[in-house]
Amino acid sequence: MALIVQKYGGSSVGSIERIRNVARRVAYHARQGNRLVVVLSAMSGETNRLLGLARELSSHPDPRELDVVASTGEQVTIGLLSIALQEMGLKAKSFTGGQVWIHTDDAYTKARILGIDCSNIDRELSKGVIVVVAGFQGMDKNGNITTLGRGGSDTSAVALAAALKADECQIYTDVDGVYTTDPRIVSEARRLDTVTFEEMLEMASLGSKVLQIRSVEFAGKYKVKLRVLSSLDDPESNAPGTLITYEENQVMEDPIISGIAYARDEAKVSIMGVEDRPGIAHALLGPVADANIDVDMIVQNIGESGHTDFSFTVNNTELDKALAVLNREHDAGKFKARAILGDKNICKVSLVGIGMRTHAGIASKMFRTLAAEGINILMISTSEIKISVVIEEKYLELAVRILHKAFDLDKAA
Amino acid sequence: MALIVQKYGGSSVGSIERIRNVARRVAYHARQGNRLVVVLSAMSGETNRLLGLARELSSHPDPRELDVVASTGEQVTIGLLSIALQEMGLKAKSFTGGQVWIHTDDAYTKARILGIDCSNIDRELSKGVIVVVAGFQGMDKNGNITTLGRGGSDTSAVALAAALKADECQIYTDVDGVYTTDPRIVSEARRLDTVTFEEMLEMASLGSKVLQIRSVEFAGKYKVKLRVLSSLDDPESNAPGTLITYEENQVMEDPIISGIAYARDEAKVSIMGVEDRPGIAHALLGPVADANIDVDMIVQNIGESGHTDFSFTVNNTELDKALAVLNREHDAGKFKARAILGDKNICKVSLVGIGMRTHAGIASKMFRTLAAEGINILMISTSEIKISVVIEEKYLELAVRILHKAFDLDKAA
Repeated sequence: MALIVQKYGGSSVGSIERIRNVARRVAYHARQGNRLVVVLSAMSGETNRLLGLARELSSHPDPRELDVVASTGEQVTIGLLSIALQEMGLKAKSFTGGQVWIHTDDAYTKARILGIDCSNIDRELSKGVIVVVAGFQGMDKNGNITTLGRGGSDTSAVALAAALKADECQIYTDVDGVYTTDPRIVSEARRLDTVTFEEMLEMASLGSKVLQIRSVEFAGKYKVKLRVLSSLDDPESNAPGTLITYEENQVMEDPIISGIAYARDEAKVSIMGVEDRPGIAHALLGPVADANIDVDMIVQNIGESGHTDFSFTVNNTELDKALAVLNREHDAGKFKARAILGDKNICKVSLVGIGMRTHAGIASKMFRTLAAEGINILMISTSEIKISVVIEEKYLELAVRILHKAFDLDKAA
Repeated sequence: MALIVQKYGGSSVGSIERIRNVARRVAYHARQGNRLVVVLSAMSGETNRLLGLARELSSHPDPRELDVVASTGEQVTIGLLSIALQEMGLKAKSFTGGQVWIHTDDAYTKARILGIDCSNIDRELSKGVIVVVAGFQGMDKNGNITTLGRGGSDTSAVALAAALKADECQIYTDVDGVYTTDPRIVSEARRLDTVTFEEMLEMASLGSKVLQIRSVEFAGKYKVKLRVLSSLDDPESNAPGTLITYEENQVMEDPIISGIAYARDEAKVSIMGVEDRPGIAHALLGPVADANIDVDMIVQNIGESGHTDFSFTVNNTELDKALAVLNREHDAGKFKARAILGDKNICKVSLVGIGMRTHAGIASKMFRTLAAEGINILMISTSEIKISVVIEEKYLELAVRILHKAFDLDKAA
């Protein structure tokens, strides 16, 4: 009797009829003899609606209170799904993040999971109850409600799968697996049967909306068997989706480039003409990190006459905050610079694939392909298994399409 | 430095602009030097919307899951008000029923408060923080979310005032006090400066929407100084509203009839031709009580030849459930009856006043007034301070108007 954790996103529970569909799928798996823990997001649009109410009251609402408000979205869906399952004659019971207890730190709106007390879940599972858990949320040690940040429901699901030692963690989305790139941009995009953990990690971090990066990190750390599936398929079709693998030998047979990811919600911060001295990176990025702003790509351009241009990317929504921090530090004399600039009209496009570093010519082919279409590269960042470029946002779809074609991703490996 | 508990209902927090208005009022009282605990309902319409979603999934949704869903409405408003107060430069912090901890039994959808742990609130108040608490909800001893039933936010507020030994509990509504009857039906209705606890209790139990009966009971038990005020008045107007009094000598100066209450959401159950034997009332009402259905008026008509007609009223929404219970018991041979009937098209109209029993002629004047307009009385019930009649619902407004006039309630005492 397998123990399966299933996670359904906002669009899968976006209406009463869709919640009924999720219930049918859960019921199908339950009747196959599986024990089930189901993790849910809020109904699509609900979290934005709730945060919008808060933002009408304040341009900088208190994060603790934001979490109190935002966490209600998932609380509604878990109650509704439990009712739908009961209506089908199944035993089901809902739990909020605090009731489970998904124990987090107190970094409101982006809390980290510290541990999960599985005793409530184990007890219910042993009674044959389907356990329905609110994703995205937890509780700190003082009983305050916390949320894990956007997409945190994936992380909730994987963390529960790890804590419960589940046989599989199934992430249901509106696509039927992981693709070579976004099929809405490139119609020839192909579904991958498997993708390595490392590739998935890069794809997630690079903006693929299929899985949230923290959930992939969590899965890798605990070797959770993670599968991406469509919540729109017929449950009985047994569509395989995409399995995230950890086996090295399987990696060797994979194509070199497995996909193209992109992120539209990035913004670039440039500190121009900053003095090039030891510790300057820390002087610039330390206060940004202290303000709890996640920094993504970091590039320090070659400087002249003791000065350098320093750029990094942050999430769109945090650009103003990052600029304010830097201006404050600058005005306090912590560093000298000619200008501090922000740019929201950028995006990031990345090639992802195992063994990329050992295959010379991939980076140059990428740059050549972009140049041939007149797309200027603003920043470059590379790692073992990806090459990312920052370009003007208006070129995003074009860049993805031409790279997908240039690297033959439309052809089966 | 007074400690005041304020409660705002759903229409007072029904929009972002109204939440800002509540924040302004709270801020005014805080700046007068008061310590404040604010209890909130959900935004008007929200609880119905949430329960409606659940009812789309099931005609008899699990009460535990209903509470999980319904309790989110208040959780949203407490977060939003806290943000609005912070935006005005005040310290504020929200607490759910479970976080406070408002400890209830596990009678989901109609839980009773067992106790309140005030330590969290006391700590925040001592730091000068305005404490914002979700009304209507609590937590049972196993950590399950419970709700107190409709109007339960009043009860939350009074219970908190009692537990905290607050100097005053202020209930803000969309009317500026307690009236001799509903001003929407009788334009001459007058606001009462004071009303005795006993009268308020009757008015609440008889359908006056101003205060929920349980909150009045609670207030009486702990002698909470309770005041009904309008949330629409200018905060600085210091409008007095209506104070609920406990002093006996003040009672003596009150007019005999202080008001007319009505309830539209009643339904009548009649068990016709039931055998008239000892224990029959228990045989009929015991299973109804066991099904957690509140019974209001109970009338056993005079029977003939060993049979009797037995009638009682329940809330509209529980009529089907009550009929199902009675039919089940009947079919199981627990009692014999000629027919079991339900009628939703009824209402209850009540005269309320201290000393009514000692003033002969009031009941007969009431019956005569109704008869003169051709209104048939279906049931009668009396107590120390009220006379209630059940009539056809279509006569409700007419009955209230003619009784208000007949007892000179439009004239100051």
